[in-house]
Amino acid sequence: MASLSANKKHKVTVVGSGNWGSTIAKVVAENTASHPDLFEKEVQMWVFEEQVEGRNLTELINEKHENQKYLPGIPLPKHVIANPSIEDAVKGSTILVFNLPHQFIIAQCRQIKGHIEPYARGISCIKGVNVGDGKISLFSETIGRELGIYCGALSGANIANEVAQEKWCETTIAYDPPPVDSQAPTPAKTPPNGTPASSQLDLTKLDQHKDVSGLPSKVKLKPLPAEFHPIDHVTIKTLFHRPYFHARVVSDVAGVSLGGALKNIVALAAGWVDGLGWGDNAKAAIMRVGLLEMVDFGKRFFGKTIQTKTFTEESAGVADLITTCSGGRNHRCAKMSVVEGKSIAEIEERELNGQKLQGVSTAEEVNNFLKSQGLEKEFPLFTAVSQILKGEAKYEDIPKLIESETSDAFA
Amino acid sequence: MASLSANKKHKVTVVGSGNWGSTIAKVVAENTASHPDLFEKEVQMWVFEEQVEGRNLTELINEKHENQKYLPGIPLPKHVIANPSIEDAVKGSTILVFNLPHQFIIAQCRQIKGHIEPYARGISCIKGVNVGDGKISLFSETIGRELGIYCGALSGANIANEVAQEKWCETTIAYDPPPVDSQAPTPAKTPPNGTPASSQLDLTKLDQHKDVSGLPSKVKLKPLPAEFHPIDHVTIKTLFHRPYFHARVVSDVAGVSLGGALKNIVALAAGWVDGLGWGDNAKAAIMRVGLLEMVDFGKRFFGKTIQTKTFTEESAGVADLITTCSGGRNHRCAKMSVVEGKSIAEIEERELNGQKLQGVSTAEEVNNFLKSQGLEKEFPLFTAVSQILKGEAKYEDIPKLIESETSDAFA
Repeated sequence: MASLSANKKHKVTVVGSGNWGSTIAKVVAENTASHPDLFEKEVQMWVFEEQVEGRNLTELINEKHENQKYLPGIPLPKHVIANPSIEDAVKGSTILVFNLPHQFIIAQCRQIKGHIEPYARGISCIKGVNVGDGKISLFSETIGRELGIYCGALSGANIANEVAQEKWCETTIAYDPPPVDSQAPTPAKTPPNGTPASSQLDLTKLDQHKDVSGLPSKVKLKPLPAEFHPIDHVTIKTLFHRPYFHARVVSDVAGVSLGGALKNIVALAAGWVDGLGWGDNAKAAIMRVGLLEMVDFGKRFFGKTIQTKTFTEESAGVADLITTCSGGRNHRCAKMSVVEGKSIAEIEERELNGQKLQGVSTAEEVNNFLKSQGLEKEFPLFTAVSQILKGEAKYEDIPKLIESETSDAFA
Repeated sequence: MASLSANKKHKVTVVGSGNWGSTIAKVVAENTASHPDLFEKEVQMWVFEEQVEGRNLTELINEKHENQKYLPGIPLPKHVIANPSIEDAVKGSTILVFNLPHQFIIAQCRQIKGHIEPYARGISCIKGVNVGDGKISLFSETIGRELGIYCGALSGANIANEVAQEKWCETTIAYDPPPVDSQAPTPAKTPPNGTPASSQLDLTKLDQHKDVSGLPSKVKLKPLPAEFHPIDHVTIKTLFHRPYFHARVVSDVAGVSLGGALKNIVALAAGWVDGLGWGDNAKAAIMRVGLLEMVDFGKRFFGKTIQTKTFTEESAGVADLITTCSGGRNHRCAKMSVVEGKSIAEIEERELNGQKLQGVSTAEEVNNFLKSQGLEKEFPLFTAVSQILKGEAKYEDIPKLIESETSDAFA
């Protein structure tokens, strides 16, 4: 696959080693072994060092080839090398796969800044988007901005343990670095979304973020040296696609990231409708309406880089939504809340061991933002979910709240 | 809503009175009562006369306002009038709603031909398409051709009993009559799909049916007299939309009709994957792949009148697919077949009381057609389902059979 002049192999590092991080390390290590023309076989995996059974977790992983704490029972390829030093793990890598809890992104990026190859490319496997204070930003953007590199995103209808057990599923990878002239790098005229060029999107200033790709470029992307095979869609697919983990590569980083966040709002409504015993058709209707509001949200606030089909045709969109509305915990807790006549907060406390439902906070943040824009009515399902969470509307009102008597597709 | 000159009301007749027919009669009768400016209140419902408890079914319905045989326990509006004479029921009606078993369509159309208003418009609520002998035709086309009228189609994630109980769901109505000059009717230059202009699609002659709307016009549509309010999308929505039955009106008759047929092929694969215990993500992946093959099938064989979004965004597409892959009988029997290690034929015989699974015959017919076109490989999931049904492949092979290692969206 590599061209004649491209004789230098890509070194891959996975930054993070939790349940999903260890799983992704297994996936990519299987592929680096299968494609020795493209990749160095060894995959570095940064592990936050901790003591397990009185020993360092990294030593245990490198000895047993298993992450006994976060992915027990799953053999890891022997060439996944656990490394407690993040600076050492990323050294010389051209492809950095980020898979760590989102609250650690900035700190870890600052720790490796200056230690990475300036021409490295990133893929964020961190689900969702960062919502808060009237702003929405993509984790891939945070990484890109902090490190001055391009970072794409991976998301899909994936559960780490199932992927680790090689139960078949699909995923979507969005990767769309701006064109870089390898001889004389210049800032891309229209850098796509997810590039370091874009600062945090301030959703309180609607006009300024209509098009993510139109934000002023602050960082010039470093071109990959010519001796490397380009890191293009085929290379990315080759790194992640397995017989049990079918990967599709697209260009819409914002769409792939938003799908993983907004689906949780829809899952609450689907859970309520299920709890009311309204049947599969009502639930499918909620999902359909929710999917269209997800598309609309993306198009309005992330501009023209968003593609409808990322939501309606890809694993990160419709498939992840279907799964989340079937067995996810937002759906499950919302259903319980109706069946047992208890508030969602009571159910959260009982079921989630101190954790919170992502759908609840996302619904509130999205509603605050929509309200600030005067756009609540344009997103009747998102708004209904927020109203129900606040006790301002009842579950049973959902059909009425989202009913459109006159305006329509009329396609 | 009616214009000043449009003072004549539409008379609505429902042709058919089974479970779904009686339900739709209830829905439209509620709306004729709510919109006296547009519709005559009385709704005629043609009933195939039979004896129930020693009495005529029509008499029972008109006395008890309930169809005790096919929709027991559901009160019908008193202005639904059961009529044993199909010729009399359709007399003077401008809107004919067809809702009868598909095997009776041709015979009943021939019986009413000459008794209907020549400018009447039809809506077919008959699910699916007619597949056989290398041909696929829409039931709306059959009706249109037989009667020389325009006929649209209604389909969605609907179960008659749930709609009758007013459990909320959505539906899609496709209606796109060709423009007719009311002064001097001429055949439309590009009659849309579902018009009587199109004869049965011969799928063995690919070039001839690339575009349904491009088929030569055989019948000139009669214009609706000017004293009637136009039968447009708003009128159609007003007739079918209820607080518990949200209707969206689109123009893609072929897409709406195909969705209701092809989904059953996908549901078999979803059932098998469920039976294997592969989890929600694998099932969601099957549905996603199936949805895209449905779109591709429509686009290739029904030409440019097909819209992707009919499948990916409407109730007749994605929502009906989700429901069918959750609780439908194709899914249920396919799952049993894997769990119990029995052939689908054995399960059919035990579970369906002599009936057959629609997915099985549709999968075979679609496969025969794809084979005749040399296009089996372009539809890997449809082909895999057919191979598994024939014993030529195993359930477990599905991921491999639909795997795309190189070609991709790469959008």
